[in-house]
Amino acid sequence: MYEFPIQRAATLKDKPDPKTLVFGKVFTDHMFLLNYDAGQGWHDGRIVPYGDLNLPPSAMVFHYAQEVFEGMKAYRRPDGKVQLFRPMDNVRRLNDSCERLCIPQLPEDLALEGIRALVKVEQDWVPSEPGTSLYIRPFIIATDASLGVHASHSYLFCVICCPVGAYYAEGINPVRIYVENEDVRAVRGGTGYTKCGGNYAASIRAGERAEEQGYAQVLWLDGVERKYIEEVGSMNVMFKVDGAIVTPKLTGSVLPGITRRSCLQLLRDWGYPVEERLVTAQELFDAADAGKLDEAWGTGTAAVVSPIGEMGWNERKAEVNGGVIGPVTQKLYDTLTGIQWGTQPDPYGWTMPVD
Amino acid sequence: MYEFPIQRAATLKDKPDPKTLVFGKVFTDHMFLLNYDAGQGWHDGRIVPYGDLNLPPSAMVFHYAQEVFEGMKAYRRPDGKVQLFRPMDNVRRLNDSCERLCIPQLPEDLALEGIRALVKVEQDWVPSEPGTSLYIRPFIIATDASLGVHASHSYLFCVICCPVGAYYAEGINPVRIYVENEDVRAVRGGTGYTKCGGNYAASIRAGERAEEQGYAQVLWLDGVERKYIEEVGSMNVMFKVDGAIVTPKLTGSVLPGITRRSCLQLLRDWGYPVEERLVTAQELFDAADAGKLDEAWGTGTAAVVSPIGEMGWNERKAEVNGGVIGPVTQKLYDTLTGIQWGTQPDPYGWTMPVD
Ligand SMILES: Cc1ncc(COP(=O)(O)O)c(C=O)c1O
Ligand SMILES: Cc1ncc(COP(=O)(O)O)c(C=O)c1O
Repeated sequence: MYEFPIQRAATLKDKPDPKTLVFGKVFTDHMFLLNYDAGQGWHDGRIVPYGDLNLPPSAMVFHYAQEVFEGMKAYRRPDGKVQLFRPMDNVRRLNDSCERLCIPQLPEDLALEGIRALVKVEQDWVPSEPGTSLYIRPFIIATDASLGVHASHSYLFCVICCPVGAYYAEGINPVRIYVENEDVRAVRGGTGYTKCGGNYAASIRAGERAEEQGYAQVLWLDGVERKYIEEVGSMNVMFKVDGAIVTPKLTGSVLPGITRRSCLQLLRDWGYPVEERLVTAQELFDAADAGKLDEAWGTGTAAVVSPIGEMGWNERKAEVNGGVIGPVTQKLYDTLTGIQWGTQPDPYGWTMPVD
Repeated sequence: MYEFPIQRAATLKDKPDPKTLVFGKVFTDHMFLLNYDAGQGWHDGRIVPYGDLNLPPSAMVFHYAQEVFEGMKAYRRPDGKVQLFRPMDNVRRLNDSCERLCIPQLPEDLALEGIRALVKVEQDWVPSEPGTSLYIRPFIIATDASLGVHASHSYLFCVICCPVGAYYAEGINPVRIYVENEDVRAVRGGTGYTKCGGNYAASIRAGERAEEQGYAQVLWLDGVERKYIEEVGSMNVMFKVDGAIVTPKLTGSVLPGITRRSCLQLLRDWGYPVEERLVTAQELFDAADAGKLDEAWGTGTAAVVSPIGEMGWNERKAEVNGGVIGPVTQKLYDTLTGIQWGTQPDPYGWTMPVD
């Protein structure tokens, strides 16, 4: 068991109205910090007031983006308690990211206990309105004051939290997505399976372009053949094609989403045939033309599931389920949110109380 | 013409002995800063004492690596004056990086004048021992305090400088390089042609692995077919094969090096046949076996040219020119360093005095 020193903020901020919250802009009163130094390992886990990081301009993170992060949530249950969803999966994925980026592994328990301790301190920040939650952002940055292109010898692990409003405050409206032909997010042999900053930096331009054309998200193609579907924006993606559930397999350029993993488990347990395999854009648009693209949705911590109502690819268009959310998408949403917010039983043991 | 306010450091640091300098660890007394805010553009260029950047932990650069940089040098000429080498090329490349990363373009003159003004203030830091120089690191980081995956609305452009010792203090010794089969640095459609942090983060693991095996650098293969040569470590790469100069063409995943461009110009003017084209690892190792791989070298601001004495690829080995620097490599080195340090005429107008 870990005990972390807590330095309390002198004044606490006012909690914002969850109805008007914009994602990722309001942060809680404290943060968790943990340092790494070569020879010393990870040390000095502590909770301190939320505040600036002071780094020399030569800090490696500013130049070579040796940085990884995670995204997870704390949910308020009907009984008032606060719980996390599969938090150890996030810690393990963070370590997988670390391995690729040459960042030293975090002791899993230490990282998890740091996150829990922070959420415990901030539990009043977990809103209770339907669909709201506390978003948790653990991240690691390389702090060596050095311009040599090498793995840093010092790092900072930091956890910050922000309350988030209901993703679907206005009802679940399917989104329009656009197949990106030009920019590539990730490639086999690269960093696509990690949550490292560089993947997101590479994705911004296509995202902005899609938005300008009225699309909500980019549907990424693989970087080698540019024909296989990979992800949608910052979500994994699934399709119901002619009765079967089809999703891109984890080839190394796709993030192994925890929502994805949870959805696949549920779908298999519900008896759906589930295919994790290579999926071409072609076959999906052909299935749509043939009336066999029953449903399509993205999966991720932010939205849980995000139904897709229309897909664009060059001049082609594919409408999905008449532009409304389909029954499988809805059932996944209801079941997962039920488990996450504790309004339904958790037969899988996915949730973990903070206290 | 731009005039930047200068806030002088209260005390100046001692200048280090260039003989014992480690690259990128000692910085000068001042830095140049310039801010961007949406609606306002780039503003408030200024020179201030070198010191920490204070950023909220939610700053975009820590999460999504929206960051780009450049690398260039100031050289002390025999007459004591300080000059830059093709600095506008660096500014333009920085803007190309910005475009890909959705960072607003810098006014070219403003950026160049900022760099020059800083080097002028720091000119006592430009060492005069043979082969030494002042390394200049302009970089841009996204500073929005927001976790949404979008282009930031605010940025900081910062320029820092560090004196560097002679790269070849112990004579030019050819290095051993290793063809990386697993990790990929960049792919067509990605960010390989830019100097964004993510490319370097993705490259660290292979670099460390190569070092463990006694190699100085990684020879990168393309991300699509994994057979074409791209770059060597953080340098472009050239080969003399059967009399002709062969170098990977700029396909989008290779950085358009300024040293590369300068070498190609010199080589063409010297009458060598120069081929910018796809180059397979196979053909190079076959050429070596056939005794036709005359020379091989990397090109970059740090080393100018770095002769390659041996290449490894799985079980294959290729020795180049008996492990010693070849005549073309040597002539490129002599000519370019002559122009850069002002010991030779500059017929191309590549140099620019700081004052
Ligand atoms: C690129 C990308 N894909 C997929 C996901 C979904 O992962 P998870 O379900 O673990 O949130 C995320 C994170 O939210 C992501 O950033
Ligand atoms: C990946 C990479 N390739 C090539 C180069 C060489 O470019 P330049 O000659 O402009 O220094 C650099 C920078 O030094 C680099 O980082």
